[in-house]
Amino acid sequence: MILQRLRSEMKKENIDCYIIPTSDPHGSEYLHNHFKEREFITNFTGSAGTAVVTENQAFLWTDGRYFIQAESEIKESGFKLMKMGIEGTPTYIEWLSENLKSNDLVGLNGEYFMVKSYEKLKHTLEEKSIFIKDIDLIDNIWENRPELPNGKVYIHDFKFNGKSSLEKISLIRNKLNYYNANITVISSLDDIAWTLNIRGSDIKYCPFVYSYLIIEEESVVLFINKEKLEQKTYEYLNKICYIYEYDEIFNYLGKYNNKKFYIDKNKVSVKLFGSINNSNNFVYGNNITEDLKSIKNAVELENQKNAYIKDGVALTKFIYWLKNTVKLKKINEYDAALKLQEFRKQQKYYIEDSFETISAYGKNGAMMHYSANNENSLIIEERGFLLVDSGGQYLDGTTDITRTIVMGSLTEEEIEDFTYTLKSHFMLSTCKFLKGTSGRDLDILARYNLWKNNLDYKSGTGHGVGYFLNVHESPPSISPRSTEKSLEPGMIVTNEPGVYKEGKYGIRIENVYEIVEDTTVGNDVFYKFNVLSFAPIDIEAIDMKLLDNYEIAALNDYHKKVYEKISPSLNSDERKWLYNVTRELIR
Amino acid sequence: MILQRLRSEMKKENIDCYIIPTSDPHGSEYLHNHFKEREFITNFTGSAGTAVVTENQAFLWTDGRYFIQAESEIKESGFKLMKMGIEGTPTYIEWLSENLKSNDLVGLNGEYFMVKSYEKLKHTLEEKSIFIKDIDLIDNIWENRPELPNGKVYIHDFKFNGKSSLEKISLIRNKLNYYNANITVISSLDDIAWTLNIRGSDIKYCPFVYSYLIIEEESVVLFINKEKLEQKTYEYLNKICYIYEYDEIFNYLGKYNNKKFYIDKNKVSVKLFGSINNSNNFVYGNNITEDLKSIKNAVELENQKNAYIKDGVALTKFIYWLKNTVKLKKINEYDAALKLQEFRKQQKYYIEDSFETISAYGKNGAMMHYSANNENSLIIEERGFLLVDSGGQYLDGTTDITRTIVMGSLTEEEIEDFTYTLKSHFMLSTCKFLKGTSGRDLDILARYNLWKNNLDYKSGTGHGVGYFLNVHESPPSISPRSTEKSLEPGMIVTNEPGVYKEGKYGIRIENVYEIVEDTTVGNDVFYKFNVLSFAPIDIEAIDMKLLDNYEIAALNDYHKKVYEKISPSLNSDERKWLYNVTRELIR
Repeated sequence: MILQRLRSEMKKENIDCYIIPTSDPHGSEYLHNHFKEREFITNFTGSAGTAVVTENQAFLWTDGRYFIQAESEIKESGFKLMKMGIEGTPTYIEWLSENLKSNDLVGLNGEYFMVKSYEKLKHTLEEKSIFIKDIDLIDNIWENRPELPNGKVYIHDFKFNGKSSLEKISLIRNKLNYYNANITVISSLDDIAWTLNIRGSDIKYCPFVYSYLIIEEESVVLFINKEKLEQKTYEYLNKICYIYEYDEIFNYLGKYNNKKFYIDKNKVSVKLFGSINNSNNFVYGNNITEDLKSIKNAVELENQKNAYIKDGVALTKFIYWLKNTVKLKKINEYDAALKLQEFRKQQKYYIEDSFETISAYGKNGAMMHYSANNENSLIIEERGFLLVDSGGQYLDGTTDITRTIVMGSLTEEEIEDFTYTLKSHFMLSTCKFLKGTSGRDLDILARYNLWKNNLDYKSGTGHGVGYFLNVHESPPSISPRSTEKSLEPGMIVTNEPGVYKEGKYGIRIENVYEIVEDTTVGNDVFYKFNVLSFAPIDIEAIDMKLLDNYEIAALNDYHKKVYEKISPSLNSDERKWLYNVTRELIR
Repeated sequence: MILQRLRSEMKKENIDCYIIPTSDPHGSEYLHNHFKEREFITNFTGSAGTAVVTENQAFLWTDGRYFIQAESEIKESGFKLMKMGIEGTPTYIEWLSENLKSNDLVGLNGEYFMVKSYEKLKHTLEEKSIFIKDIDLIDNIWENRPELPNGKVYIHDFKFNGKSSLEKISLIRNKLNYYNANITVISSLDDIAWTLNIRGSDIKYCPFVYSYLIIEEESVVLFINKEKLEQKTYEYLNKICYIYEYDEIFNYLGKYNNKKFYIDKNKVSVKLFGSINNSNNFVYGNNITEDLKSIKNAVELENQKNAYIKDGVALTKFIYWLKNTVKLKKINEYDAALKLQEFRKQQKYYIEDSFETISAYGKNGAMMHYSANNENSLIIEERGFLLVDSGGQYLDGTTDITRTIVMGSLTEEEIEDFTYTLKSHFMLSTCKFLKGTSGRDLDILARYNLWKNNLDYKSGTGHGVGYFLNVHESPPSISPRSTEKSLEPGMIVTNEPGVYKEGKYGIRIENVYEIVEDTTVGNDVFYKFNVLSFAPIDIEAIDMKLLDNYEIAALNDYHKKVYEKISPSLNSDERKWLYNVTRELIR
């Protein structure tokens, strides 16, 4: 058993407790299999969790999305499940602090721990005189560990992104200068891809390449597996930066003396941070690139509009296909997801999906991160909802959209909840807001109508979206938990309120919006949302009596745009159908 | 000139710069004249500001409410105005930091500086090697300084407050215990009045007495001018606490050794804090009493409802009188305010007004804190609005209400803005919210409809209200600047959105609400607002076309309650009128 092999490694090294997080050296959201150490050790395949192993005990912490799945997957592994967020369950740090003895030694691989979370852990454990050793105990025992990926890197053309890498680097240097810093180390893969205008295929759903980037006053240094660079890409990059092998960064960083580094503690690993010697000074903050890339430039905004229309065409064709096909033959959730991908693949500049499609029928829709596979898929029947949350990676943008599709007869409760969700969506999407307003401030606008009806959803309302980068991109966020950072024109956010009733159904209506200027009155500058996503919202599930006049107007206005943008790319049957389902509704 | 006398005192003491804040030793909002040092030195009578004097310069910092008034009042004083919040104007701390030289000595009276703001100042100045000396340079030069007030203290009866002082002290001790602290020093006057169930008349608009309170595990010690205590009050207090003279607290505190103090740095002065010796430890937080008194008990909630009805009767009678009288004779803003006070005085348990009535006609309404006096008052004409914001201190509650009263013909713009304000008020007042929601989260609900119409108000939306205590009571607050503290059942808050157009008019509609439980669904606990204030909202200013159905229903529902609660206390003419102005409106 793998757990026993780990324990014997621990014994050899005098480690009393070993922690295996879910991470790669870059703090990525999606991991290549090579980095799935926690999955290797526990068998649990979910996207989030932390494993802790002592001489006699082994626990896996994960959150509510995964309780059922984790319980079943870890059965043979020797691990016990710790249900995060359930009252009475300690966090893994609390557990360590309460259950380890003073002078115990905790092991972890500093390459997979970001500095911020490591410092929190260290601080808590040191209070109990428990110490941490940076040590890799997994690599040795992982037979047939997947190799690091080796996909080619390619240049993301100027016509798509509208800003050269040199220009971006100059903006980064301005900021470094502002902070009186000499150097920044960028470890997050989307920030590197953005800065250099390169893309890769090391990770599914994300067009990134494993690499590190150092930007200093006079030079730029990229650390990357050179085999991934074809002649053309190499020449392109060579004009921008010095190129070293991926692993050389640690030695390279060690040679700096008496410099001031700008570091993002959430995105730099303990190992990377530790390779910078003590003669240097530091200033901490979010990656300088974060703010720069979150405000899309004019070329990106323009291209993106096309990407969203193509994506809407794929989704609209899919909905038409689905509604017709379900009457003719048996299809399950997984078939539907595959078919949707097929429609996306037909679109220009499509690269891959931007995340695993959620195709959730009936009660599965209530699981907010359900993913269907060929074995467990429900057959779609001619009643209730199919919730489809999906997106694409295109050279000209990243998309994310959810439609809750009526498959046949609906209950009154389903219609009411769908209508409340629609009200919630429109209340946010049609609002205006003062410059300086944060996503945190706006969140309640999407809950107001649900709360009035004793409903709520246990997620944020919206997240930022990258431009052919991550589908979840910080800093924009519309959530009660988001920061006070204000929303600015050029930022891109989702709006995705929902109703989730366990054992019954899930409803979510999601579009992506760009933030644009509206009016200026005296010193008051107002912003608003401009919709990017186009696909019909299922009017069969709407109770018109529950809609206010402004909501009916907003729906009709939206559907008019959907028809205008989408219909030119449809065949005549599809177009006729779209004309009907986007028709103007009158009370 | 007073400024010269201060400068010669500064020279004698080698002080390079002297700071005079607006404060008393207790961090009160309203000051007795004895403590108005900043007014004495600058002639500026406003309620907020900081004066700074150096050998050659003298500045007064104050905020936008007071620019015009301050400019005119300080003309002869030798001070120059610094306009807070205007771009390019440094804060007084920034100014000190930029303009003083290293090794300069800054003087201030530590009795009037709360620890928190002092620490911020000290931190900034020390970075520039500028030092602070605690020294009183004003008392010497202030001839005919008003004596400290000497009003009698009285017992606030149990039938009004429903919780004995001993019970409150025991709750405070539980909290001390929770923090592992031995002692708390309470310096804020409303917290002392609440804890001991006493009231006084040292400060206008606030039923408080200058005093300090120490609560420790075994004993309670009150510091107060004993002359203020009649036999009965003395005996009452003597059962609860040891009684010392007001000034003796500093010596008394100095005698503690090796204790742990719980201290509110926003409410304890530098002098008070400094009198505790170094052998003691500290835990910091808001006064323990703050949370306890903010959640009103059942007796307070019940009594308060009566107080709010009485207050509504006074205001309703006033509106009736005003609307009729303006047609018959000339009345000005000040006359109106006096008449309103007359109606309040007729109410049972009325003690005084809870703040200076804002009676602002026409363009004066746009000044959010306008106060009329007999000389400058505008005559009320038969057009436009009179904005009246007022409240009372009753033995059974503190009130605060604003009505914008139609005096005759209105412009379309006035009607629209009034209607938007009403929509804003109702959107907040009819909402439901999840347990854990803060006033900060809710604020945007009152702005949503105004923002949609390119309007905003530059103040918070609501504040907590005391129970026969301060009319502005923390912690409840509905504002983009309020903390994340959640609103809880039993808290009392105002809801007062508005529209202010400089040179034209001001509109504000303010009611007070208690927070009550609504429904629990699964783990979701919902709260809502229950209205306490009753007085007609002027339907002559409403454009029904701009109201949604739910808003019309909310207005009709509210007016029905107004008639039910208020009409029994009116004469028959008033009642007939009220019936008409609270009639059900149909679209």
